[in-house]
Amino acid sequence: MNARVDGTGLRGVSAGTTAISSVGADGKALRYRGYDVAELAARSSFEEVAYLLLYGELPTGAELEAFRDELAEARQLPVDLAAVLEAIPASAHPMDVLRTGCSMLGTLEPERTFEEQRRAATRLIGALPSMLLYWYHFTRAARRIATASDEPGAAAHFLRLLHDEPPLASHARALDASLILYAEHEFNASTFAARVCAATLSDLHSAVTAAIGTLRGPLHGGANEQAMALIERFTDAEAAVRGVEEMLARKERVMGFGHAVYKQGDPRSPVIERWAEKLARDDDSRRKLAVAHAIDRTMRERKGLFPNVDFYSAPAYHALGIPTPLFTPIFVCARVAGWAAHVFEQRADNRLIRPSAEYVGPGPRPYRPLAERA
Amino acid sequence: MNARVDGTGLRGVSAGTTAISSVGADGKALRYRGYDVAELAARSSFEEVAYLLLYGELPTGAELEAFRDELAEARQLPVDLAAVLEAIPASAHPMDVLRTGCSMLGTLEPERTFEEQRRAATRLIGALPSMLLYWYHFTRAARRIATASDEPGAAAHFLRLLHDEPPLASHARALDASLILYAEHEFNASTFAARVCAATLSDLHSAVTAAIGTLRGPLHGGANEQAMALIERFTDAEAAVRGVEEMLARKERVMGFGHAVYKQGDPRSPVIERWAEKLARDDDSRRKLAVAHAIDRTMRERKGLFPNVDFYSAPAYHALGIPTPLFTPIFVCARVAGWAAHVFEQRADNRLIRPSAEYVGPGPRPYRPLAERA
Repeated sequence: MNARVDGTGLRGVSAGTTAISSVGADGKALRYRGYDVAELAARSSFEEVAYLLLYGELPTGAELEAFRDELAEARQLPVDLAAVLEAIPASAHPMDVLRTGCSMLGTLEPERTFEEQRRAATRLIGALPSMLLYWYHFTRAARRIATASDEPGAAAHFLRLLHDEPPLASHARALDASLILYAEHEFNASTFAARVCAATLSDLHSAVTAAIGTLRGPLHGGANEQAMALIERFTDAEAAVRGVEEMLARKERVMGFGHAVYKQGDPRSPVIERWAEKLARDDDSRRKLAVAHAIDRTMRERKGLFPNVDFYSAPAYHALGIPTPLFTPIFVCARVAGWAAHVFEQRADNRLIRPSAEYVGPGPRPYRPLAERA
Repeated sequence: MNARVDGTGLRGVSAGTTAISSVGADGKALRYRGYDVAELAARSSFEEVAYLLLYGELPTGAELEAFRDELAEARQLPVDLAAVLEAIPASAHPMDVLRTGCSMLGTLEPERTFEEQRRAATRLIGALPSMLLYWYHFTRAARRIATASDEPGAAAHFLRLLHDEPPLASHARALDASLILYAEHEFNASTFAARVCAATLSDLHSAVTAAIGTLRGPLHGGANEQAMALIERFTDAEAAVRGVEEMLARKERVMGFGHAVYKQGDPRSPVIERWAEKLARDDDSRRKLAVAHAIDRTMRERKGLFPNVDFYSAPAYHALGIPTPLFTPIFVCARVAGWAAHVFEQRADNRLIRPSAEYVGPGPRPYRPLAERA
């Protein structure tokens, strides 16, 4: 039943070349166009990184300023898009909100030719956080929020729209670092979906819509939300150790640990772990962090597994006051930079992505008319 | 520049197994679960074929009746979905309408668990033609059409909603055959996008939304629309021969000819060609068909290329009074059966689809702060 032909899941099969990022060199490195992700998270901003991913080089001061201006302008939502967001029920999956909002934007402001790809990408990076939070406040509190703000970066903008007040600098910086960590990861499933779509020479909105729907799957995005749910199950470190040991005994999967590509550790995890530690200022956050550390230690000792980027993102986001259902949508707001960069790259040297399949179904058989079928 | 590593485009690389269809056996056969597509097009209905694709066997009379009833019920659109369709401008690409409508339906009627996949698939197959034609009439004539009808099949339902009168039996039968021909085609790009999405264990609406966006690309769907545009360029057969010869001399691509998989002929083409001939009853249709035949002959003689399914679909649809921009959306209304079948199959024996990439970008380099960048 579970025998697999070569190529199932395409694990280890090269589907093409990329100059955007390199994943897992030495079992642990992640570099965006040659720059180490931990260094970028420590020293740059999400906007610099998005520019780097899209255009290949870090921006100059003037380029960055122009890019920030365009992004800030892109935070405003068209009236018809706001109307669509209002029609989406409060019970909807927030990833479905972004998927629908992205697709709708494509009907209102289509990318008519690839010469418009730069504008279309900037617009999406700017508008996706606005879409999410417009829908969030409208369905939670029947408030139609203004989605413009004078915050210079996406991280501060997001927190300001969420909490309706200017964020602490440390909070904005923490989320900024997290957006950098989540911005790009080579041919992961959502990026690959975007490239399969783009390779038919479809538009950017179609490719990003496909990627959002793919990231929505629990085997891809969502691990940070599941990590939060796990952490919230336990009141203290001792209960966490006991609980995780019981899970392991029952062979349950503990989310947020291990990685298909990194064999010696996810380079993004220590970065976000340090932010989770810095942000833990109140009792609740400190308790969550203690539980997270206990789970981490237990997984290392019992299974030899290290936390991946998703695990400590959970207590960090929690300390920022971000509701858990918005964790994966934040992943979208960051990864859209990587997706767009991959669409640009695919278009620059395109070939339709069309694999083969091995047929394992019934052999040729003659049609029998309805009357002769039991 | 154009040197390609092995695996680019994944051409000839097996991405897994399927029991749904086999393409290109003997260079020309297409079989759905063992049944020859030409035989299905001649003797069965789209609803029988959709059932076959989804569930593996042709339905019994009782099963088909129940399936038809569910599909007919699924033609009604939720009020909030109609509101979203009304917010999409008349200028939008009809494929973007279906992409957005499919995504929106997923927010209103989400597939909560995979046990709901059957219901969700039936709903989409039933509702997609309604979405398209609701938007079409609303934006063209400010009419809010009723999307229910008592037509037993999707083909007759489509023509009735489009023309606002019961279709001729021969017209319904022709479109029905065309839906059968378009319903499934193994790991083509849109179906592969649906499987990449589904392999993260995402929902059916995400997978179909991804597939619609992928089919939208001119290298995938759209060839039937381009074939129509070509045919409409010429007033008669002689002009067509001359025009195509000039195009070939200029090395322009003539759409609707040749196929990546079929080397000896697309088995769907003769079926739809015969329908185009049967449907050509008025002067305009007969002239279009004469032009199409002339282009076909020229391509065979000059390039040794045969028409694929898209080429004669164009004059056939034209004779049915279908506006050209709706040609690719009809492809969606048919192929959604195949996409859903592939999602079901992927889920039944899932592995995340995550290929590798060959990194060809800059080597490791240190970050330079903004002030030091030129």
